[in-house]
Amino acid sequence: MALENTSEVSEAHPMKGGDGPNSYAKNSILQRGSVDAAKELLNKAIAEKLDIEIFLPSRTFHIADLGCSTGPNTFLAVENILEALEFKYQSRGLHSQIPDFFVFFNDHTSNDFNMLFKSLPQNRRYYAAGVPGSFYGRVFPNASIHFIYSSTAIQWLSRVPKEVLDTNSPAWNKGRIHYSNSTDEVIRAHETQYSEDMESFLHARAQELVYGGLMLLTFPGRPSGTPHSDASPNVCIQLLGACLMDLVRKGVVSEEKVDSFNLPLYHMSPQELAAVIEQNGCFSIEMTTDLPLQSVDITLSLSQLVASHMRAGMEGIFKQQFGEEILDELFGLYRKKCEEQISTVKSEKPVNFLVVLRRKAD
Amino acid sequence: MALENTSEVSEAHPMKGGDGPNSYAKNSILQRGSVDAAKELLNKAIAEKLDIEIFLPSRTFHIADLGCSTGPNTFLAVENILEALEFKYQSRGLHSQIPDFFVFFNDHTSNDFNMLFKSLPQNRRYYAAGVPGSFYGRVFPNASIHFIYSSTAIQWLSRVPKEVLDTNSPAWNKGRIHYSNSTDEVIRAHETQYSEDMESFLHARAQELVYGGLMLLTFPGRPSGTPHSDASPNVCIQLLGACLMDLVRKGVVSEEKVDSFNLPLYHMSPQELAAVIEQNGCFSIEMTTDLPLQSVDITLSLSQLVASHMRAGMEGIFKQQFGEEILDELFGLYRKKCEEQISTVKSEKPVNFLVVLRRKAD
Repeated sequence: MALENTSEVSEAHPMKGGDGPNSYAKNSILQRGSVDAAKELLNKAIAEKLDIEIFLPSRTFHIADLGCSTGPNTFLAVENILEALEFKYQSRGLHSQIPDFFVFFNDHTSNDFNMLFKSLPQNRRYYAAGVPGSFYGRVFPNASIHFIYSSTAIQWLSRVPKEVLDTNSPAWNKGRIHYSNSTDEVIRAHETQYSEDMESFLHARAQELVYGGLMLLTFPGRPSGTPHSDASPNVCIQLLGACLMDLVRKGVVSEEKVDSFNLPLYHMSPQELAAVIEQNGCFSIEMTTDLPLQSVDITLSLSQLVASHMRAGMEGIFKQQFGEEILDELFGLYRKKCEEQISTVKSEKPVNFLVVLRRKAD
Repeated sequence: MALENTSEVSEAHPMKGGDGPNSYAKNSILQRGSVDAAKELLNKAIAEKLDIEIFLPSRTFHIADLGCSTGPNTFLAVENILEALEFKYQSRGLHSQIPDFFVFFNDHTSNDFNMLFKSLPQNRRYYAAGVPGSFYGRVFPNASIHFIYSSTAIQWLSRVPKEVLDTNSPAWNKGRIHYSNSTDEVIRAHETQYSEDMESFLHARAQELVYGGLMLLTFPGRPSGTPHSDASPNVCIQLLGACLMDLVRKGVVSEEKVDSFNLPLYHMSPQELAAVIEQNGCFSIEMTTDLPLQSVDITLSLSQLVASHMRAGMEGIFKQQFGEEILDELFGLYRKKCEEQISTVKSEKPVNFLVVLRRKAD
């Protein structure tokens, strides 16, 4: 027996580990908004779409969070899932048959699992394991998971398309760090990479999820019909690219370093995702909707939030390419630009989506 | 539903993480000898004692390594287990029914799981997860594990018995770091702690292991009938205690710090273990034997080996109590003492034991 793929098949872009002031753990309030907004829909999906009766022979219910990072949002999401599951068992009169829950926290091998494990809630009602590896390959045994959850993770491509960094290619993305405001060639290269990645993702999940199992995905995306360049998450990245070019003009960052760097982020539309799911054939789409941006009850301005959120998510990958010394200046500049252009950043169109898939029997 | 115990119930004594010159990863050759010596017995246990037919309905075979540390011995042991299992399936004509293997690497939350995950073999034939938590509590769902392995780990008690550090107790262990060369009161306190710990260990495992599942334990111990003070692993620790007292006399370490410190290590005899297993009642003893010390094919002397092995295993706990600055002097002195007293350290009596237990049906 050989596993289909247990090695890392993709580049890792871990969120900033630890629990310092710029860490992901302390700066993921916008992602938390997404978890909160998803809660009601999660309850609905589990109440209406999950057939727990077929799982009763299993003594353990296996839940996976793909791209969990280091917390705390992943623990909140798991709590929500467990609450909905227990309510479902109880409402069906199956209280005595509530299984043990075993939760698998998955992320790249380079994720800070030590930090994740240290932050695990003390009085949790589930068993916990960390599972290292890219979700673009296999990470779990055949038919072993009952519920898959992934929040704000599948917008990361497995890699930057090679041609985008190739100075001899027509798809070379000179002077930009993202495809969304670039040439048709660059956009096409990313669309192709996205298709390949999502096919790999669905193929792996189709093997791991039991028949009847659900997969709930949330992701920042692009309303169907909106051009890449106008989608709000892309506008935020273009703004960061502009800040980086400012640093090039100031002589702080070399132009070559920018030319050899791209963010492997693709903001898909629900329609695009539906097409790949259709092609894969193993899943039915049970729910697809946009997520309201929760009003976040804190004193920070939206631009501050966007900036700190962006820094927590992007710091690692920028540090790797440009060095730690530019981070404060880059993200300081970014925050200023966000404040100036808040109306552009703050789109009226939905930017977060939720999709619920069900593993069909073959 | 509430889990019986998901919080850490014990003190953690992680092996030295990372992969530096004094790391556990690079200094666990003696433990590796134990893995090698156990291989033949492991094969025998799986060939003769494991009833794989009863597991055929499970699509995944779950293996746990308790107290795995950071590698590489744990990966070697897992390879040995998988080889023996696959051979068994094949020899029974069940080749087409070989399940997926899912291996759970367990250790304290403070273990360096990041390092463990980075060292996972690239082309492994199993899925891998890390499971943080003390094995003196529950770490897995009910009846979820088919094979449990634990090598050189259960000699660590969950804690130092409180009275041993209590200056008002008759069991105060002044001027020593271990029970083995101490008073009857101190020895009794450790015997009691050991009994409680092993009861907790067996109680938790009885719930986690499926009926018919095997548990293979190896541990440094004390031949039945040998006094605590004469057992070779205890002699090694007494020698380390003597080195520490030398540093007290030199004024490098304060006497109070030694008096408030004890190593929570207990070297049980196979007879003692058998008594606790009998009392627990959920396991049959399928095999109990001593492990030959493998001849290690390297150029280091035995005293060098013992010293570097001791440092890799003990450095963390000594650093916590006495500070990093004393480590080189302490373990340098220890190596010298080992060389002088190698005949004492090198016992003719067995010091490593292997026990195979089978989970009985209730």
